[in-house]
Amino acid sequence: MEVPLTPLEFARRTRRLHGHREGVVDGALRLSYEQFFDRCDRWSAALQGLGVSRGDRVATIAPNTHAQLESFYAVPQAGAVLVPINYRLTPDDFVYIINHSGSTVVCAHSDYLDALDGVRDQLPGVKHFVAFEGAPREGWLGYDEAISAATPDYEPAEISERDLLTINYTSGTTARPKGVMITHRNAYMNTVGTLVHLPIGVGERYLWTLPMFHANGWTYPWTVTAGGGVHVCLPKVEPSEVFRLIREEKVSSLCAAPTVLVSLANASPEARGEVRPGVRVVTAGAAPAAATIERLEGEFGWEVTQVYGLTETAPFITICAPLPEHADLAPADLAVIKARTGVELITSGELRVVDEKGNEVPADGQALGEIVVRGNVVMDGYFEDPEATERAMGDGWFHSGDAAVVHPDGYAEIRDRIKDVIISGGENISSIEVEGTLLRHPAVAEAAIVGLPHEKWGESPHAFVVLREDGEASEAELIAFTRDRLAHFKAPHGVTFVTELPKTATGKIQKFVLRSGAPNVARQ
Amino acid sequence: MEVPLTPLEFARRTRRLHGHREGVVDGALRLSYEQFFDRCDRWSAALQGLGVSRGDRVATIAPNTHAQLESFYAVPQAGAVLVPINYRLTPDDFVYIINHSGSTVVCAHSDYLDALDGVRDQLPGVKHFVAFEGAPREGWLGYDEAISAATPDYEPAEISERDLLTINYTSGTTARPKGVMITHRNAYMNTVGTLVHLPIGVGERYLWTLPMFHANGWTYPWTVTAGGGVHVCLPKVEPSEVFRLIREEKVSSLCAAPTVLVSLANASPEARGEVRPGVRVVTAGAAPAAATIERLEGEFGWEVTQVYGLTETAPFITICAPLPEHADLAPADLAVIKARTGVELITSGELRVVDEKGNEVPADGQALGEIVVRGNVVMDGYFEDPEATERAMGDGWFHSGDAAVVHPDGYAEIRDRIKDVIISGGENISSIEVEGTLLRHPAVAEAAIVGLPHEKWGESPHAFVVLREDGEASEAELIAFTRDRLAHFKAPHGVTFVTELPKTATGKIQKFVLRSGAPNVARQ
Repeated sequence: MEVPLTPLEFARRTRRLHGHREGVVDGALRLSYEQFFDRCDRWSAALQGLGVSRGDRVATIAPNTHAQLESFYAVPQAGAVLVPINYRLTPDDFVYIINHSGSTVVCAHSDYLDALDGVRDQLPGVKHFVAFEGAPREGWLGYDEAISAATPDYEPAEISERDLLTINYTSGTTARPKGVMITHRNAYMNTVGTLVHLPIGVGERYLWTLPMFHANGWTYPWTVTAGGGVHVCLPKVEPSEVFRLIREEKVSSLCAAPTVLVSLANASPEARGEVRPGVRVVTAGAAPAAATIERLEGEFGWEVTQVYGLTETAPFITICAPLPEHADLAPADLAVIKARTGVELITSGELRVVDEKGNEVPADGQALGEIVVRGNVVMDGYFEDPEATERAMGDGWFHSGDAAVVHPDGYAEIRDRIKDVIISGGENISSIEVEGTLLRHPAVAEAAIVGLPHEKWGESPHAFVVLREDGEASEAELIAFTRDRLAHFKAPHGVTFVTELPKTATGKIQKFVLRSGAPNVARQ
Repeated sequence: MEVPLTPLEFARRTRRLHGHREGVVDGALRLSYEQFFDRCDRWSAALQGLGVSRGDRVATIAPNTHAQLESFYAVPQAGAVLVPINYRLTPDDFVYIINHSGSTVVCAHSDYLDALDGVRDQLPGVKHFVAFEGAPREGWLGYDEAISAATPDYEPAEISERDLLTINYTSGTTARPKGVMITHRNAYMNTVGTLVHLPIGVGERYLWTLPMFHANGWTYPWTVTAGGGVHVCLPKVEPSEVFRLIREEKVSSLCAAPTVLVSLANASPEARGEVRPGVRVVTAGAAPAAATIERLEGEFGWEVTQVYGLTETAPFITICAPLPEHADLAPADLAVIKARTGVELITSGELRVVDEKGNEVPADGQALGEIVVRGNVVMDGYFEDPEATERAMGDGWFHSGDAAVVHPDGYAEIRDRIKDVIISGGENISSIEVEGTLLRHPAVAEAAIVGLPHEKWGESPHAFVVLREDGEASEAELIAFTRDRLAHFKAPHGVTFVTELPKTATGKIQKFVLRSGAPNVARQ
């Protein structure tokens, strides 16, 4: 009688109850849920006709279009595993991920056909290349043509909740991307937990500002559908287009990384136009700045909630859940609370912040520990990488690599990546704290702090700084600036001025490059 | 890394995050969640000290007290199975259920100690009788004394999500009570689904008008805790006490059977006092009358939501979920919608309304079929009754026994118990529809319609009627009254006037008694 926990269950229910309602908007295209799922069924049948069978991997490289969204249903319901690839990666990364995942079908948006044609000879395992849109092209199967030619009677896969649903490759700040294996149960539990904490129902209109490839769009391809809301697709995040869609499509909620929120908060009045109030915003990836929250909430009349997680945890671990006592806080104090990482969701499992010995750190807002978690959102492991899996979760807890404090109210707050914490004379120094202080100097545009070996202290903090175009500051001045504002042992012992910081495709600073290549970094 | 789906997980999280908050109010007693769970731990340790081990059954016979609530945590976390017995049953029923479940410990409220002492010699398997409160008594272990004497260091049970959590005995309209086996996974999924559709958070104050024994208080012993709300205990439902607690304890939500809602709606102004508005009411068991809904919503300013389920489905199958288009309805039309059974919850599984061949009936609001369901809330089976289990769910679907129509919007509406549907000349007659019509006659206090064998039509509807004390009506008059208001084939062919209708301990009419004993029923 038990049925598997799978997000496909939400498709069944919504199609039945809300098939006649609008489900997907993508530019001029408007699909009812019935039309949308009919397309999914036909694409499932087409994939099976192409020889895709249970457990096979199907990769996509596409922005937030209806075709990309369809993949989140058509691929798994045919029994295959979806590999949604970050389209911002290089062709070399595409080759690595497609080959490592063993994908036999690759579906791509028209922007990426040239890139893939350029590396086609390095992809011997791919049997079919599918062009999501655009004119017919040599070597590419047309997606819409295949759907038109197919019937909707695909063979539904017998799914177990432990079956793989997707493999999501991490961006890899230190090494090659790793393939995070997400099961149907993982995604189901994350979706249900999201619905508990961030309700979505019929009438909701969700704007796709968050890339669907990114940790499965935080499971919103399924969450919005489960609630019977409308997916409003957005292939490219331009503030003016975001504000226009919010206005014209009556958008009620969206998810976005803080950088996107900053671009919205700072958009020019012309780009903004009249801002529709009441939008519920969920953000993750880094703590949003209090100033950004105040702008969005105070000026736009939006509501911002921070969540936290990793691709490896399907992805939500925590939510900065509101409490009754927050209602009495002044806006500035509330923004400080809202910038916290929060508490575990009701369904995400058990979170602990532990020291090196695995003991929980005191909830004093001071002691740094690593966030570890166990529960039903934790991935099945890294695809074909048992060593990395063992390192990440061999002791029964998934180790996030994030260093956090726990406040007396139980709310965690991330202070750093564990590997970026500097241990100097036995004291923990959060590189993020020092960076935040440097960024308050008017001449500093970007800053990265890494620990360099130090004879006496073990490690000492060292700053890499990019100055503003019109900014001027000396090493001594910046060190003094920091000493004035932080405990002295936290101030950098030296400053290297650089023209840019090394970053990954997703914009994360590659501190390992700074650390290892410190003497080689081009001085300004 | 996966952890079992168990409602005990909610205890862990809430104790950690909200241990300092008020958790339980029971008369003058106020417990923080930390105090409450400390008591649970001590009772678990005491139970283990009494020899209770994994899989053993522990029965309770108690109204809604803090001790009864503690059982929902202390018993399962010690690895045992809770058997919460309907205290309105007879001592004979107690004996049957305690023996059939093999309970080795029986905990009872002071109101039931005499009854149990009277049947003690028929309970050879019970090793310990525990008095939840009251003065020391021969043969009874004092609950509070045991908790005071115990330490909180019980041995936590290793729980699998398929383990039994509770056995809930049905009231049995036709036969001996059956033991519904609810697993940890069943209850977890029902709780999470409830939280998705009927959010509960910190600050919520829940009044215990619904008996906890009844389908595990619809899982609210865990749901309220999961949300971090406050349990306000209520051992006995008296309207004046309900209104007082709502006012003084600032109650924000409650669950209740429609009969309780009727008693609240009809309470005298003195019993009511000033009615606190904004209470969210969840009701199930039968469709609430539109007049009751209008009174509660229109006059009290409360909000009523109907859910539907059975003990066998943990128990929610459907919720009459609001839709945006309902917002424009006039109150009377909205009350008609709100009286519907509704749609399946996002987590409860797949609902179908099927004819005898298992085919879905058309969604035309006319065709009657049986509600069947499969999903993660469906019980593991009836305890030690494989035949009944096979009958109920042998084909992979749980058969509810409820006859319903499906409206064009997909909302189901129960019309009858399948076995009470009368098939006359090939037409289905809903006994509830005919009863509802008879009840509109000013002289009729109660009515029950059953099908009696009929040579020509197969079955024909026959009415059993209780007249009001001051009411007068003839058989011919009531038949004519019905023919004027319904299709003629639905009108009763005969009327038997009786002084009362046979009912179960929970107030359900025993139609099998009427049917089988038709000639023997005392005529007025």
